[in-house]
Amino acid sequence: MAGLPGWTVENGKLHKEYKFADFTHAFGFMATSALGIEKMNHHPEWFNVYNRVTVDLMTHDAQGITSKDVDLAKLLDATAAKLQ
Amino acid sequence: MAGLPGWTVENGKLHKEYKFADFTHAFGFMATSALGIEKMNHHPEWFNVYNRVTVDLMTHDAQGITSKDVDLAKLLDATAAKLQ
Amino acid sequence: MAGLPGWTVENGKLHKEYKFADFTHAFGFMATSALGIEKMNHHPEWFNVYNRVTVDLMTHDAQGITSKDVDLAKLLDATAAKLQ
Amino acid sequence: MAGLPGWTVENGKLHKEYKFADFTHAFGFMATSALGIEKMNHHPEWFNVYNRVTVDLMTHDAQGITSKDVDLAKLLDATAAKLQ
Repeated sequence: MAGLPGWTVENGKLHKEYKFADFTHAFGFMATSALGIEKMNHHPEWFNVYNRVTVDLMTHDAQGITSKDVDLAKLLDATAAKLQ
Repeated sequence: MAGLPGWTVENGKLHKEYKFADFTHAFGFMATSALGIEKMNHHPEWFNVYNRVTVDLMTHDAQGITSKDVDLAKLLDATAAKLQ
Repeated sequence: MAGLPGWTVENGKLHKEYKFADFTHAFGFMATSALGIEKMNHHPEWFNVYNRVTVDLMTHDAQGITSKDVDLAKLLDATAAKLQ
Repeated sequence: MAGLPGWTVENGKLHKEYKFADFTHAFGFMATSALGIEKMNHHPEWFNVYNRVTVDLMTHDAQGITSKDVDLAKLLDATAAKLQ
C-alpha cells in the first residue's frame, strides 16, 4: 500500500473515506473525478452524505484488486487533495 | 407512500434504487440534483456504482422521516425521470 | 445539415442555442455532456447564462467542420433532449 | 477593484479569464461553483473552451455591477484557486 496513503483493504476492496468542508466540495470532488473515471472505464463504488465520500475499489473481471484500482485511487487522491 | 412510487421504508429511512443506461446518466442525475439538494439544505445518503444510484433519506434533527424527505424524494424522482 | 435539426453554420462553425427550464437544467446538460466530451477528446466552445447554452463546434486541426463536430453535435442533442 | 485580483470591467461587467490544466479541471470549477451560484440565485455569463473559462458578471435588475457581482466574483475566485 506504499503510495496510497489513507487507503485500507476491506472485504477485498481498496477503501478510503474522504472528508470535505461541505456538500459543495464533496460534490465538486465527485464531479471533477467523474470525467477521469469515465475515460478509464473503471468505476468506483462510492457513497456520499453531506461532506463525506466513502470509496471502494475492486476489479470485477479479476475478482480482486488490480492496477486499475491503484490508478483510480491515485486519480481520486489527486482530485480530493485540491478540493479539501 | 402515495405519490412516492418505488420508494420503501428501510431502517427508518425513505429508500429507492434508480437504474440508468450507464455511468454518464447516473452521474448526470446526481449532478443535476445536486443544485436543488444544496438549495434545500437537505442532503441525501446516496451510493453509486456504474449505472445505479441508491438513495436513503431521513431527517437527522427529527430522527425520522419528515416532509423535507418527501420533498427531496420528489425532486430526485423528477430529475431521474428525465435522465432514465 | 440533415440529421442536425436546429444547427446552423456561423463563422465556419456548427452553431446551436439550447434553452432549458432554468439554470439547474442547463447545468445538468453541461455536466452530463462533459463525460462524453472528454471521452471524445473533442471539446465545444460553449456559453451559458441562466437557462441558455450556446454551442459552437469546429475542428482546429482541420480548420473547419469535420465528422468529429457532427458526432459531438449529436451527443449534445441527445443529452439536451432529455433535460429540456 | 481592491480585493478582486485579475478582474477588470468590460462593457459594464466584471470580467475575468480563468485558465486550468485541462478540460476536466475547467469543468470541475464550473460544477463546484454551480451549487453556490444557484443558492445565490445570481448567475454568471460564462464561456468555456477546453481549459479556459471566461466570466462576465452584472446585475440585470440594476443594469450595472452590484455587491451581488462582487460576492459571486469572490466565490468563483475561491473555487478556481483550488482547482488551478
